[in-house]
Amino acid sequence: MGAAQSFRNICDHQKNTNVRLSLPAVCIIWQTAMVILFGIFIRYNEESDTHWVEHKKAANISSDIENDFYYRYPSFQDVHVMIFVGFGFLMTFLKRYSFGGVGFNFLIAAFGLQWALLMQGWFHSLDYTDGKIKIGIENLINADFCVAGCLIAYGALLGKVSPVQLMVLTLFGVTLFAVEEYIILNIIHAKDAGGSMVIHTFGGYYGLTMSWMLYRPNLKQSSHLQGSVYHSDVFAMIGTLFLWMFWPSFNSAIAGHGDGQHRAAINTYLALASTVLTTVAISSLFQKHGKLDMVHIQNATLAGGVAVGTAAEFMLMPYGSLIVGFCCGVLSTLGYIYISPFMEKYMKIQDTCGIHNLHAMPGVIGGIVGAVTAAAASDSVYGHEGLVNTFGFTGNFASMLPSKQGGHQAGALCVAICFGIGGGIIVGTILRLPIWGDPADDSCFDDEAYWEVPNDEESIPAMPPYNNHMRNKDVMESHFTMEPNARQ
Amino acid sequence: MGAAQSFRNICDHQKNTNVRLSLPAVCIIWQTAMVILFGIFIRYNEESDTHWVEHKKAANISSDIENDFYYRYPSFQDVHVMIFVGFGFLMTFLKRYSFGGVGFNFLIAAFGLQWALLMQGWFHSLDYTDGKIKIGIENLINADFCVAGCLIAYGALLGKVSPVQLMVLTLFGVTLFAVEEYIILNIIHAKDAGGSMVIHTFGGYYGLTMSWMLYRPNLKQSSHLQGSVYHSDVFAMIGTLFLWMFWPSFNSAIAGHGDGQHRAAINTYLALASTVLTTVAISSLFQKHGKLDMVHIQNATLAGGVAVGTAAEFMLMPYGSLIVGFCCGVLSTLGYIYISPFMEKYMKIQDTCGIHNLHAMPGVIGGIVGAVTAAAASDSVYGHEGLVNTFGFTGNFASMLPSKQGGHQAGALCVAICFGIGGGIIVGTILRLPIWGDPADDSCFDDEAYWEVPNDEESIPAMPPYNNHMRNKDVMESHFTMEPNARQ
Amino acid sequence: MGAAQSFRNICDHQKNTNVRLSLPAVCIIWQTAMVILFGIFIRYNEESDTHWVEHKKAANISSDIENDFYYRYPSFQDVHVMIFVGFGFLMTFLKRYSFGGVGFNFLIAAFGLQWALLMQGWFHSLDYTDGKIKIGIENLINADFCVAGCLIAYGALLGKVSPVQLMVLTLFGVTLFAVEEYIILNIIHAKDAGGSMVIHTFGGYYGLTMSWMLYRPNLKQSSHLQGSVYHSDVFAMIGTLFLWMFWPSFNSAIAGHGDGQHRAAINTYLALASTVLTTVAISSLFQKHGKLDMVHIQNATLAGGVAVGTAAEFMLMPYGSLIVGFCCGVLSTLGYIYISPFMEKYMKIQDTCGIHNLHAMPGVIGGIVGAVTAAAASDSVYGHEGLVNTFGFTGNFASMLPSKQGGHQAGALCVAICFGIGGGIIVGTILRLPIWGDPADDSCFDDEAYWEVPNDEESIPAMPPYNNHMRNKDVMESHFTMEPNARQ
Repeated sequence: MGAAQSFRNICDHQKNTNVRLSLPAVCIIWQTAMVILFGIFIRYNEESDTHWVEHKKAANISSDIENDFYYRYPSFQDVHVMIFVGFGFLMTFLKRYSFGGVGFNFLIAAFGLQWALLMQGWFHSLDYTDGKIKIGIENLINADFCVAGCLIAYGALLGKVSPVQLMVLTLFGVTLFAVEEYIILNIIHAKDAGGSMVIHTFGGYYGLTMSWMLYRPNLKQSSHLQGSVYHSDVFAMIGTLFLWMFWPSFNSAIAGHGDGQHRAAINTYLALASTVLTTVAISSLFQKHGKLDMVHIQNATLAGGVAVGTAAEFMLMPYGSLIVGFCCGVLSTLGYIYISPFMEKYMKIQDTCGIHNLHAMPGVIGGIVGAVTAAAASDSVYGHEGLVNTFGFTGNFASMLPSKQGGHQAGALCVAICFGIGGGIIVGTILRLPIWGDPADDSCFDDEAYWEVPNDEESIPAMPPYNNHMRNKDVMESHFTMEPNARQ
Repeated sequence: MGAAQSFRNICDHQKNTNVRLSLPAVCIIWQTAMVILFGIFIRYNEESDTHWVEHKKAANISSDIENDFYYRYPSFQDVHVMIFVGFGFLMTFLKRYSFGGVGFNFLIAAFGLQWALLMQGWFHSLDYTDGKIKIGIENLINADFCVAGCLIAYGALLGKVSPVQLMVLTLFGVTLFAVEEYIILNIIHAKDAGGSMVIHTFGGYYGLTMSWMLYRPNLKQSSHLQGSVYHSDVFAMIGTLFLWMFWPSFNSAIAGHGDGQHRAAINTYLALASTVLTTVAISSLFQKHGKLDMVHIQNATLAGGVAVGTAAEFMLMPYGSLIVGFCCGVLSTLGYIYISPFMEKYMKIQDTCGIHNLHAMPGVIGGIVGAVTAAAASDSVYGHEGLVNTFGFTGNFASMLPSKQGGHQAGALCVAICFGIGGGIIVGTILRLPIWGDPADDSCFDDEAYWEVPNDEESIPAMPPYNNHMRNKDVMESHFTMEPNARQ
Repeated sequence: MGAAQSFRNICDHQKNTNVRLSLPAVCIIWQTAMVILFGIFIRYNEESDTHWVEHKKAANISSDIENDFYYRYPSFQDVHVMIFVGFGFLMTFLKRYSFGGVGFNFLIAAFGLQWALLMQGWFHSLDYTDGKIKIGIENLINADFCVAGCLIAYGALLGKVSPVQLMVLTLFGVTLFAVEEYIILNIIHAKDAGGSMVIHTFGGYYGLTMSWMLYRPNLKQSSHLQGSVYHSDVFAMIGTLFLWMFWPSFNSAIAGHGDGQHRAAINTYLALASTVLTTVAISSLFQKHGKLDMVHIQNATLAGGVAVGTAAEFMLMPYGSLIVGFCCGVLSTLGYIYISPFMEKYMKIQDTCGIHNLHAMPGVIGGIVGAVTAAAASDSVYGHEGLVNTFGFTGNFASMLPSKQGGHQAGALCVAICFGIGGGIIVGTILRLPIWGDPADDSCFDDEAYWEVPNDEESIPAMPPYNNHMRNKDVMESHFTMEPNARQ
């Protein structure tokens, strides 16, 4: 701690948010690297290659509709919407950081998914006969998933970091994610269809730890910009709703064909519905006058989808999903009311979007629910074949028992937490270097730092308007702005 | 009428919008009830259960892609978007009730779909061998449909009721819907793929009748909040467009596999396209200076989708769809111009969103179109097998004739209207009890009653800052408004 | 040029934007014509007709899931979202033309798709046995595609034309499109799955040429309305993101079943990801202080999707897609910085949305990429069957060679450019007639001309509010507005 503190002092410096050299350099160099690496490594897989016709014959596939594309493409597009519109618009709630919320989300997601295709490809889709990664629709979904981990982490840092820092965060985040995912899914052989552990727990702790590393004691200097305005709250609801609606696709996108995807969608649908009611209940109960708080409605209503991720594909049962959603709505909302202020005050964790309550904590709950559900699985409920299919008890794991699988799931949860915190410390240290163009405390949460912001009507003042024909505000502007060619 | 009037007087009382006890109580108790009832009654069906592998073999199904999930999931997600983003954002048009529009829509839809799974399940998906309701993707779609009826009713009451009243409205609305649907589809054996009668006619009259029961003679006290502002109209267009675009999915979601879904989508696509042009024409023609009115564009453009619902699966023919859309665009727009003001002035029906013009009237037209189209069906147009498939002339109804089917369709329309009006009277009476925390006349259409509303820039304050660093408007605002405790 | 100039002078006249007669007349007459023509010509095809049951047996189709509906419906819905929400909201960026952007987009798309079903139907889906056009899901997608060409052209004219002009533009645009498409796809036998040439090149030059024909030398009179405000930029991001996310569906919607659709989606996904990074790089590099410009983020990030359209279905290879996206991000952003101002100043082309940089130029690049990729195709990469399937080397074209196909692709590009420019001259001439109700130079970019615009809060001034209960602005309104009938 002492060392960290002094390192922090070293890094405190006169801030310069001009990223005119660093941002273009990072983007161009990294994109060029992507082109080269894709050239060396990435090819179409047998389902997206023109040799599909021949493959179809060889594998005795009767119809084009059997191409995995048709099983997964609708879910993929829903996940894609969650990543870009869902996460993006959820972060537009700040009154003057909507450009940064949706725009930087766009930037790092677009970069992250390319790097994810490579990193995840090396671990999962490498064809050892020719050393190439063969990609298809499932790789695209997984790349989007991988990016989600970094976007979650961005939620904790929203408004306090530069786009260059976000690119660095994403580069390391995706790398860590791919390793963690490989350990959890392939070595530990845990199941995690909706990524409660792999995505949300990892992403949550990764972001929270970085936020702790980048603690800003004087952040209250920009506190006037930390709230929302009426319209920005409505924009954020676009993000909330698209996340909420498409979460069944998220949790079922890479589940098993047939009953696996079907069941994952049902479980998620139910858990989310339940969460909405308990979120509303707690939000109203803990506010003076029983008024609802938009922060809770925008965020805590999603916690059920996070927490049902791991177990979505299991026989969690409809009522089980409702119970998970019920608890998460309560806990997540209480988190926003009590835990976030506590963390900011006593733990030096400034969590702009409250990702602890929406991702980290529900992710851990999801991991636990998954472990318990797996441990409780039985032939009588699943059927023998069903059990084998659902948990992948084949090959090296043919003799696995559900109780043991439960232990593996619990182990996987620990791995996700360790990677999140460990990664956050390492990357947080890197991000503290005084070279990334992050904003000063008093210009946090302000798009002015990195965006050409238009002169709004509102930015202009008052004076009795005479001219009937013009709208009042135009008159006012013309009085005050002095731009030679203002209006008229 | 006299009795109703005096009952109304009894219910007039000092309003208190504090729902701090009632709203959490209702949410927690009802959600707990859902958990218990789901525990007792609801299980996965054979397509979403891990026994699917065995079922597939037993039923000689060749491939996972035959799972109903793949036939209906894309449509389900579109319907889901309509329910939450479509209906939700369509109701954001008021200048200060966007939170309530999208937020309460979210709340009651999330509750309603759970209750709908139970109610519809008892009628349609009960497995008599074990007394359980077996659910799959089609149940989720039907639950969303059922909820739509209540959301339509909400449209008539928007801004004038408390969230507790909305929960009550939804509980009863879903119950009534399930009974009505059972009578129409199973007893009367009418067809209604897109729910013109079952959803829109019922929901429309249910809402209008409740609005009549809850008539507020002094509503003009909040008339300054009944309009829109520029941005809120753009928000509402998000709702309009998602409803408009995904309506083909709505009408085809539970249509028959293959040609049924295909034809329903085409018919709806065409009807809606046609409606847009006639809406624009009438909107321009009946305004001074030929200017278009956003109210019409936001609402009447959707009427064609409502009216083509019942007949969407029939051989309505492409030109038939265009004609239905043509007429509905005209009638619905005229409804906004003439009928809504008339109803408010002379019939004591205050219909905030104009659901009479968007749902009730087009729903009735849809029922009539369905009856006529069914009566006119023939072997020569449908082919014998096509006729049997389309109208379900099997089992007890194997000897049914199209002309008789037309009569059944007409009967179904009457049932829908009766349930709407009857249900509205009963539930309206309940909602008049002075215990639900509804707003006083002068605080209708105002989010302040039930939401923590952020201090907007416009309303803010605090001290002349000289610091260049702040944006102009903050400075200027602070000169004019004087609120003491602005932002902390 | 001289003649054009004097024609222009003749057309300069006192402007009257009252479209109360012309707009309704055009809408009603054209919609009536659609009903009649659909009645004469349009029927369901064998996959959307009730005779599907029989067709299935006759054609030995094993399952309903083989109906083309299930291959293409998810993509269709995504394309539909792009047309209505994507293009619509992308055009809401102007501070006072959001209604016109999204509303007129809605109107002309709804009209255009009906006319497109007829025009394209006559060329592609006419059943010579009975003289009827038989439509199915693929026709709906193609109609949406056709409309996209006109919406692109609208982008150049945004804010400067009347809705009646837009209807005329669409009628002719769709007609030209259908002819051009027939020449390119059927006569020249070029491939263009994503429409780089057929849609974007044609639409781009069509719009630019019309903008040149409708040059307004005094447009600076409304320059105060040509910019955005903070919220309108966020609205526009909704359009950007839905276009960006669903572009893989656009380019794969009518690609071949199986690997064709799969590959087209992957290529587009990658090209777009790459474009985002280079757009950000160039935007930051060429602005003072390295600040990002929303105009670039909203538009240039999409150029990669345009440019990969023609080659999306080919074996472009993942790295090839990245390279295409890389270059387009750079060129499109530079276009916004240098070319658009140049065109406005020296070429008399006022291109409101910068469609030259987003559609015309990337479209041409896409055509070239397609030609080169086709010419370079070989049996070794595609496999023999793959080559035949991908390029349609069957029937009359069975002996076609890839190198020759490359030439045909290049020829197709020329056809698209010629149709765009030629059509633009003709239709631009028509649109200059002084009968269409276009706005005067000083009321361009202003919704007041064609819409009933609500009185916004902002339009109201300042005074210390006393009444606690009302929100400040309402008080102010009541004190200050006094305008009895608000809008004019």
